[in-house]
Amino acid sequence: MGFRFDILKKDSSSDARLGRIETDHGSFSTPAFLPVGTLGTIKSLTPEELVEVGVEAILANTYHLYLKPGHEIIGRLGGLHTFIHWDRPVLTDSGGYQIFSLAKLRKISEEGATFQSHIDGSLHLLTPERVMEIQRILGSDIAMVLDECVPYPSPYDYVKTSVSLTTRWAKRSLAQRRENDPALFAIVQGGMYRDLREQSAKALVEMDFQGYAIGGLSVGEPKSLMREVIGWTIPFLPENVPRYLMGVGTPLDILEAVRLGIDLFDCVLPTRNARNGMLFTATGRISIKQAQYAEDGRPIDEGCTCYTCRHYSRAYLRHLYLSGEILSSRLNTIHNLSCYMNLLKTIREAIRGGRLLDLYQTYSSQSDGWERESSNHSLVACG
Amino acid sequence: MGFRFDILKKDSSSDARLGRIETDHGSFSTPAFLPVGTLGTIKSLTPEELVEVGVEAILANTYHLYLKPGHEIIGRLGGLHTFIHWDRPVLTDSGGYQIFSLAKLRKISEEGATFQSHIDGSLHLLTPERVMEIQRILGSDIAMVLDECVPYPSPYDYVKTSVSLTTRWAKRSLAQRRENDPALFAIVQGGMYRDLREQSAKALVEMDFQGYAIGGLSVGEPKSLMREVIGWTIPFLPENVPRYLMGVGTPLDILEAVRLGIDLFDCVLPTRNARNGMLFTATGRISIKQAQYAEDGRPIDEGCTCYTCRHYSRAYLRHLYLSGEILSSRLNTIHNLSCYMNLLKTIREAIRGGRLLDLYQTYSSQSDGWERESSNHSLVACG
Repeated sequence: MGFRFDILKKDSSSDARLGRIETDHGSFSTPAFLPVGTLGTIKSLTPEELVEVGVEAILANTYHLYLKPGHEIIGRLGGLHTFIHWDRPVLTDSGGYQIFSLAKLRKISEEGATFQSHIDGSLHLLTPERVMEIQRILGSDIAMVLDECVPYPSPYDYVKTSVSLTTRWAKRSLAQRRENDPALFAIVQGGMYRDLREQSAKALVEMDFQGYAIGGLSVGEPKSLMREVIGWTIPFLPENVPRYLMGVGTPLDILEAVRLGIDLFDCVLPTRNARNGMLFTATGRISIKQAQYAEDGRPIDEGCTCYTCRHYSRAYLRHLYLSGEILSSRLNTIHNLSCYMNLLKTIREAIRGGRLLDLYQTYSSQSDGWERESSNHSLVACG
Repeated sequence: MGFRFDILKKDSSSDARLGRIETDHGSFSTPAFLPVGTLGTIKSLTPEELVEVGVEAILANTYHLYLKPGHEIIGRLGGLHTFIHWDRPVLTDSGGYQIFSLAKLRKISEEGATFQSHIDGSLHLLTPERVMEIQRILGSDIAMVLDECVPYPSPYDYVKTSVSLTTRWAKRSLAQRRENDPALFAIVQGGMYRDLREQSAKALVEMDFQGYAIGGLSVGEPKSLMREVIGWTIPFLPENVPRYLMGVGTPLDILEAVRLGIDLFDCVLPTRNARNGMLFTATGRISIKQAQYAEDGRPIDEGCTCYTCRHYSRAYLRHLYLSGEILSSRLNTIHNLSCYMNLLKTIREAIRGGRLLDLYQTYSSQSDGWERESSNHSLVACG
């Protein structure tokens, strides 16, 4: 498949880059945030709604689709893009993280990962080759190699052994590539150990991948440690390929990682928060179920122009949430994703205009922005 | 509020009429089917989607909105239309049916109905005057009088007493009308007793209501009995006002009632069925969870042009349903409502074109149409 990454502008105040990724299903700008479509749907939204809030590419979970409905069914029905009615870029993960976080009785061997399905307890073996085959059948635009995710904290020796295995798996993944395969990204592991991160990155960069991810972060470690690990890793990654921070994160996490040189993000945070009634505003986070919103006729965010903020009051959204109505998840998800897409757009425009440092200083000086409760300070515009 | 009903054409083969109802929030064609927006949302859909499938007017439940979030909150926020972002006609019921079917420990007295909320057990008294006040505050276009719904079967003497009470309540409702009130419809009761239906209808028609509903049907009685009761009642209703069959029904129920002279319908059937994975097709009903659809790349109905049928396969819809995805309810509801709206449109066009008898004969000869399992016979077009 076609794949190309161009850096359009580098930031003078940091390692941030403005770029563009081209695939056979169209191109998208970086830094980019990919919403998570676990089972072939960004929960509650249609593809048209994703486009309307500014989504250009999505992530789908190989582990979930392999188990349900099964990649072979999807393949026979024309591939994932056709199946889910999304004709733009799709990145699929490798399942490594889900095997680590969801599957039962997992056993890692040289061959691959044996585990019990979290759905029906059935036994499965996923090898590096099999994971590539699944992503090939799904018709992904960007595929990830199988990796082993280690818990936090993990002892040094365990992580060292694991990094070697992940490296050998990456080599096997590369060895069986075919001509029309998805672009293939490797995943740097190494836990919270600087030398192991370096070792992992160097070994993977010696091979010829089209992108590099940093995995095994946002697994419970302190934020400061997460940023340190990113900082240790990036110097060993090539300049001219995309760098992807998996499973991250909050708006401030994203802004800081962009400054360290990250190009791609995915996270369930905006969509899951939405379904739990946690909504972003320019002045902080609000929990829509609170009694203070019972008669609040204002939109979630008065500066936001998303569909939800154009037409619905906090009072109505609170009522829908407390009533368990499906429309609650929809309207909240539209708003939160709109905020994230707008944040990324603001970041890209700041890089283009040489204003990223300003944006960062404004944002980080206001404590943790969207991560904290609402205040009177205006932060990044929302909609 | 403004209200007007015009009969545009009468059918020569039956008592069916093609009409148009005008309200301050626009007009809609009859015979009409109003989807049920229990808590101020047609479950899972936005107002824009309702318009797209052809919905012109909706029903909202006074009982539910009175309890949650409370009519006074809705009133202070500008009324129901503003609150739920729907600027077209809204009919509100009176709560009589919900007091009968949902509330606990209900006690009917001359004054009104005392009951315990099904949500929190709190005690409430709804009188005919209070129910009018609630609908006035909601800003409904068409309001219903409070009635007593009796169970099926009920003894003659009980129903006779109840009909008298419902009549007195209707008189009290009328007595306190104000200038800008919603249009007010009375509800004929009388159980399955011919003379009591006649008595109820005659007494209510002596008063000056803008429409008449037939209540207390579709409560467990045989279909043939339901049709008999409609046939007993309609001759006593005035020709020039809308006739509304509450809580009905299946496509065949609707087609038969239209021929008896009914103009308005509401029912949770298409929307509830959708959420349960029961989908209408031109050849019968299908249950999308069945294994036979696991790899079925066809739309629900190949002749349907709704959003769901344009873009998604049965296999994907089955996958979403089995995965409990929110998008499942959305896509299924769009399809089923689209079928209902198309059925009503087909009925209206048949009246206009003098082809209602043909439509009825084709439809009823094919057994029970959408009510039965899918077959090879083509029935009413779906989308």
